[in-house]
Amino acid sequence: MRKVIVEKKILVANEEFANKNREFLTAKKLPCLNVISSPGSGKTTILAKTIEALKGKVRIGVIEGDIQTDIDARRIRKTGAPACQINTEGACHLSAAQVSFALHKLPVDTLDLIFIENVGNLVCPSALDLGETAKIAVLSTPEGDDKPAKYPAIFARAAVVLINKIDLLAAGDFNIEKAGADVFKINKKAKIFPVSAKTGQGMSAWCDWLEEMAAKKEIPA
Amino acid sequence: MRKVIVEKKILVANEEFANKNREFLTAKKLPCLNVISSPGSGKTTILAKTIEALKGKVRIGVIEGDIQTDIDARRIRKTGAPACQINTEGACHLSAAQVSFALHKLPVDTLDLIFIENVGNLVCPSALDLGETAKIAVLSTPEGDDKPAKYPAIFARAAVVLINKIDLLAAGDFNIEKAGADVFKINKKAKIFPVSAKTGQGMSAWCDWLEEMAAKKEIPA
Repeated sequence: MRKVIVEKKILVANEEFANKNREFLTAKKLPCLNVISSPGSGKTTILAKTIEALKGKVRIGVIEGDIQTDIDARRIRKTGAPACQINTEGACHLSAAQVSFALHKLPVDTLDLIFIENVGNLVCPSALDLGETAKIAVLSTPEGDDKPAKYPAIFARAAVVLINKIDLLAAGDFNIEKAGADVFKINKKAKIFPVSAKTGQGMSAWCDWLEEMAAKKEIPA
Repeated sequence: MRKVIVEKKILVANEEFANKNREFLTAKKLPCLNVISSPGSGKTTILAKTIEALKGKVRIGVIEGDIQTDIDARRIRKTGAPACQINTEGACHLSAAQVSFALHKLPVDTLDLIFIENVGNLVCPSALDLGETAKIAVLSTPEGDDKPAKYPAIFARAAVVLINKIDLLAAGDFNIEKAGADVFKINKKAKIFPVSAKTGQGMSAWCDWLEEMAAKKEIPA
């Protein structure tokens, strides 16, 4: 019983910070997207290429979550966008308190949209509320098309599923239709964008969705 | 303070099961390898191809850990090897208690070696003792060569690091020497085998290591 009580306390504390983040973002009219995937699916490359593509249209800031190193924040800053690196020092996901800290480090009054790049982990960050406007799942084709069935939690909650590295489709046996059908089984509202952040293929549809989101300040229908 | 006490209790309970597993495996003279990686790095394919390659030499059994589905156990059983599927139903790693249950389901007296395929997660399973003889890390080349620096926990503890999907090296910018150097910085004893489970390249060196392990009943020097 004790375990349950403690977990509840920790989750209540997280929920308080998540609610504060949500109020802060709503007051600032800032959409905030929590990007979740396995390590190495291409989250940082997607964000860097998205920032480049939307330059002059949508001003983007990034909260970078990593267990160690500031490799990712440095990659983002090369695009000219502001980035705040949070090191979780072993923890497998960002907490709402860490996001709250980072939100106050970013120049939010000069931004139209915020990305949170969570720690590379398809499991643990899925259920935790950070106060974000929506969750974005990234699945890269070399990971295999069985992942929505095997790791349903994030795919059930994501507003968007980016299927990345479609430039590697020919080298593998990833079936986009199968992966998409498995996502829709558990999440009828999900938008699926097959993309290659590397080659740029499919990125314009994703960027259009973001532009609409930044303009409307809500998740596009 | 309460959180610390509870976590300690859970870890003590896990350690008790881990110690029992270790005693059981030692009594049966069965090496047991706990395979850890991100989702989609190719763990199941490596195991299936390894079982095929060692047929008639090393009799292998597999404990399959997944959040949901029995896709992986079914893939392993197609090779003729016995496999026990454990569904963690949301949990991000296998526990020593689950491994204990599975060890008693497998026909251990007919086996020379056991693989545990952990839940796809580069973070959470790294620190947890399951009573295994050694941990094996898998890193696939599309994930990027920065992963040992960004997710050091598993690479610091692994007896072997398999760098998988080297057939995709030409399609990306993964630098095996850089990844290897980052592993050796935190783990001087690690054996690194670059492999492609798909094409078979490099698999014989890894299989030789396993054959030696199964013969000696300990981690080869």
